[in-house]
Amino acid sequence: MTTPNNTYDVIVIGAGISGLSAAKLLKESGLNPLVLEARDRVGGRTFTVRNREAKYVDLGGAYVGPTQNRILRLAKEYGIDTYKVNEEENLLHHYQGKSHGFKGAFPTMWNPLAIMDFNNLFKKMDEMGLEIPREAPWRAPHAEEWDKMSMETLFKKLCWTRTARRFATLFVNANVTSEPHEVSALWFLWYIKQCGGIMRIFSTTNGGQERKFVGGSGQISESMARELGDQVLLQSPVCGIDQSGVLVAVETLDHRTYMGNYVIVATPPALNLKMHFNPALPPLRNQLINRVPMGSVIKCMVYYKENFWRKMGFCGTMIIEDEESPIGLTLDDTKPDGSVPAIMGFILARKCRRLSVLSKEERLKKICELYAKVLGTEEALHPIHYEEKNWCEEQYSGGCYTAYYPPGILTQFGRVLREPVDRLFFAGTETATEWSGYMEGAVQSGERAAREILHAMGKIPQNQIWQEEPESLDVVPRPFEETFAERHMPSVGGFLKLLGFTAFLSVATAAVLMAHKKGLCPRR
Amino acid sequence: MTTPNNTYDVIVIGAGISGLSAAKLLKESGLNPLVLEARDRVGGRTFTVRNREAKYVDLGGAYVGPTQNRILRLAKEYGIDTYKVNEEENLLHHYQGKSHGFKGAFPTMWNPLAIMDFNNLFKKMDEMGLEIPREAPWRAPHAEEWDKMSMETLFKKLCWTRTARRFATLFVNANVTSEPHEVSALWFLWYIKQCGGIMRIFSTTNGGQERKFVGGSGQISESMARELGDQVLLQSPVCGIDQSGVLVAVETLDHRTYMGNYVIVATPPALNLKMHFNPALPPLRNQLINRVPMGSVIKCMVYYKENFWRKMGFCGTMIIEDEESPIGLTLDDTKPDGSVPAIMGFILARKCRRLSVLSKEERLKKICELYAKVLGTEEALHPIHYEEKNWCEEQYSGGCYTAYYPPGILTQFGRVLREPVDRLFFAGTETATEWSGYMEGAVQSGERAAREILHAMGKIPQNQIWQEEPESLDVVPRPFEETFAERHMPSVGGFLKLLGFTAFLSVATAAVLMAHKKGLCPRR
Repeated sequence: MTTPNNTYDVIVIGAGISGLSAAKLLKESGLNPLVLEARDRVGGRTFTVRNREAKYVDLGGAYVGPTQNRILRLAKEYGIDTYKVNEEENLLHHYQGKSHGFKGAFPTMWNPLAIMDFNNLFKKMDEMGLEIPREAPWRAPHAEEWDKMSMETLFKKLCWTRTARRFATLFVNANVTSEPHEVSALWFLWYIKQCGGIMRIFSTTNGGQERKFVGGSGQISESMARELGDQVLLQSPVCGIDQSGVLVAVETLDHRTYMGNYVIVATPPALNLKMHFNPALPPLRNQLINRVPMGSVIKCMVYYKENFWRKMGFCGTMIIEDEESPIGLTLDDTKPDGSVPAIMGFILARKCRRLSVLSKEERLKKICELYAKVLGTEEALHPIHYEEKNWCEEQYSGGCYTAYYPPGILTQFGRVLREPVDRLFFAGTETATEWSGYMEGAVQSGERAAREILHAMGKIPQNQIWQEEPESLDVVPRPFEETFAERHMPSVGGFLKLLGFTAFLSVATAAVLMAHKKGLCPRR
Repeated sequence: MTTPNNTYDVIVIGAGISGLSAAKLLKESGLNPLVLEARDRVGGRTFTVRNREAKYVDLGGAYVGPTQNRILRLAKEYGIDTYKVNEEENLLHHYQGKSHGFKGAFPTMWNPLAIMDFNNLFKKMDEMGLEIPREAPWRAPHAEEWDKMSMETLFKKLCWTRTARRFATLFVNANVTSEPHEVSALWFLWYIKQCGGIMRIFSTTNGGQERKFVGGSGQISESMARELGDQVLLQSPVCGIDQSGVLVAVETLDHRTYMGNYVIVATPPALNLKMHFNPALPPLRNQLINRVPMGSVIKCMVYYKENFWRKMGFCGTMIIEDEESPIGLTLDDTKPDGSVPAIMGFILARKCRRLSVLSKEERLKKICELYAKVLGTEEALHPIHYEEKNWCEEQYSGGCYTAYYPPGILTQFGRVLREPVDRLFFAGTETATEWSGYMEGAVQSGERAAREILHAMGKIPQNQIWQEEPESLDVVPRPFEETFAERHMPSVGGFLKLLGFTAFLSVATAAVLMAHKKGLCPRR
């Protein structure tokens, strides 16, 4: 099988956005790459399905927003347009059995203590992020201390109110499809930071969920694969990588061997385990790939005859805090021309594990009942179509959206995440330093790995491996303006101290007055 | 390749103690099993090396003790004797740069607060263990609460003194080769409990480290493999398991396919990932195997011309608390006849990761310097031989001794640990309910998985799947007697309350006396 025909400059493992953008760049640089994909489709954690009912639907990664300049550049190159996720009408926040309309990224709070608490929590998290280097979070001044802590522990330290702690849990669930007690605080703070902070990651307008691709995100991988033609092989799960010879031998489950000068492994780190390595990986990498689990999420699209929520004055965004609710976060998923009304909802982390055992029909029923309750209308009970994808069942993803780091792992193993092993180089969105976990990070990491090889071949200097991306002209970020109140509002702790001081002053004043009255003070 | 010759009743993946004891039982039950082993040797995480200098040395699992009745039964069957690890002379506890001799399982403390604190901590941990079911820790009354917590958090809650917290860290390091902040409290408490409690797991005499096998633990697997003959195939890493046909097809990296009616996967859970499954594993198992990393340890044997420590009155056990010290725990590793004087030491968890980058020679140097300091003699600086094994580099173990559960995983995923997937059954010491993580657990799990298949074939009733093991006649456990002091000693918190109350009484008495003296009390 090892004929010269099977010899390539670079073999890329994984035809997700990361692997394909690596191969694309290598090909454009005059090299001959081959992409091996385990599944019968390209796209990895992006997956656009077409059918009569949904037209097209993104069962995986879908959202894109300002500062995600690489994926926007790639989409533009292929003529794939973006459209804005609907956020015209009111958003809804559902908690304690009631729905409240609001505008902006975060629900309105009514309890002044909760407002202070939120404001302080988010400010603190962004501040902590400031001291974490994007490219080396393990070098943060407090790296060890924060890595030993889970986000749950950090929330306990920072939050005074249960309202804030409960919402913070949803914030972790929605951003990284895992639980606050499962993830390292250092890692989560890094994750938020490398997405541009709390506001950028969580916002629809001006944030990570601002837009989707007309026609679906899957088109990006499909376009790259089309360009690469027969340099992409589907249904070719890699089971062996042998670096003992002059060329690297990459073997697939169907007994084919491909020879390459270099290899880019563009899978989630944990899926390195699907391959048998000769020689074995170095100790720290061998253990790292065992320690970075993928999150848990089911993405659910419910289709309706009419876009009834907009008529009711709701845009389709629901932030739902309720232990019994399957869904934590929804967004309108209607097509940009107003056709195919639909609501996208995520079943997140603990709820995903709980609801994985149900049938598709049972999940749909629960979801519709929830939407009827939150939106306050029976119309939600009558879907005309349903699409869902449980990413936990995907052998070749392991979960979605991305890998998380449990406490203690980032500082002990993080530094080998991108470290080449002989002629193996590592891509995949987990290895990115901007929007890691997103399509943007996939492109950054794929192109960086490709340039690492160009550098190893002597084709480009070292300082060209990492490249800044010019800002998109079409999707422009606006700064997030802090209001005067947000900037100057005290934390609950600060407020209580203030209160305490004021109370002390009041008591002291009252005492002096009383003393005067009772004639206990010497009069002149 | 799928000739009738390649068809077996059961295919067992992994020729460690677990897989081999499964195959052994199946063969004895009249079936035709085949064992596929990835390495060029049997034994898995036990590995006995023979050479001139060491005679024989266990680079992996070695220790055995009372209540480990299954492994003792198996060894006895093959005529493999045990001998007691030397604990005649004084043990040493090294901290704050000084070495202190002691007797018993735990170092003597001098600070009364530390004594109370230790006593309370260990009592509490055993008490918490009492409410955790061995076979289903996720059903413990406080399962969710304890699983969200790391052991570090629990230590912070339970310990008043830094002395206790620091020693507790070493206790976790030494027992599960990971850090307190990395592991779930529920899981660690379960782990201690299913080994018989704090005293049983940590003791040499009357505990888990009481004995070793004369000739090495590797003989047990070697003996079973010898019995199984050509039913054990080495250098056969399994890369594919296909359950889509009438028989299960198991494929190895060298393109051979073996057909079986049933399969037992006898690898650590995380190593299930080395195989490509058709169909894919169910969602919870697909994610579980990504969430149970293997611990980090380098086992180091330093050989000396003379057993100088015994002459100095030390047995060879050193418990070393010192961030700069590579080794946390040592035991005498001299042969039972007094020949081949040696000290066995573990490089544990964070230190293992730190020292993995050094050369073997550098590690030996650091270790000898440490032993010289702790034993207080230059003789330790002159080794005549060195053996070590960094288990983190083992592709087909992933680490040692065993898998650990980070916070949140046991309650969410634990219940699928042993759940069969169609015709796949799961063994491996991680799936055991007594001495999981040890050779004993390997035997329990292998035999249980074998009997699950015998039951599936209708050969035994369900209630025979799990079997109690009669107590060994040769290695008999003694109960651990709590002293009167241990039983009645208060916690530091309790003591302070007591102090507080006493102080209140004293102050009150003094006040009354003073009042009398000053004539402020009415006299009769």
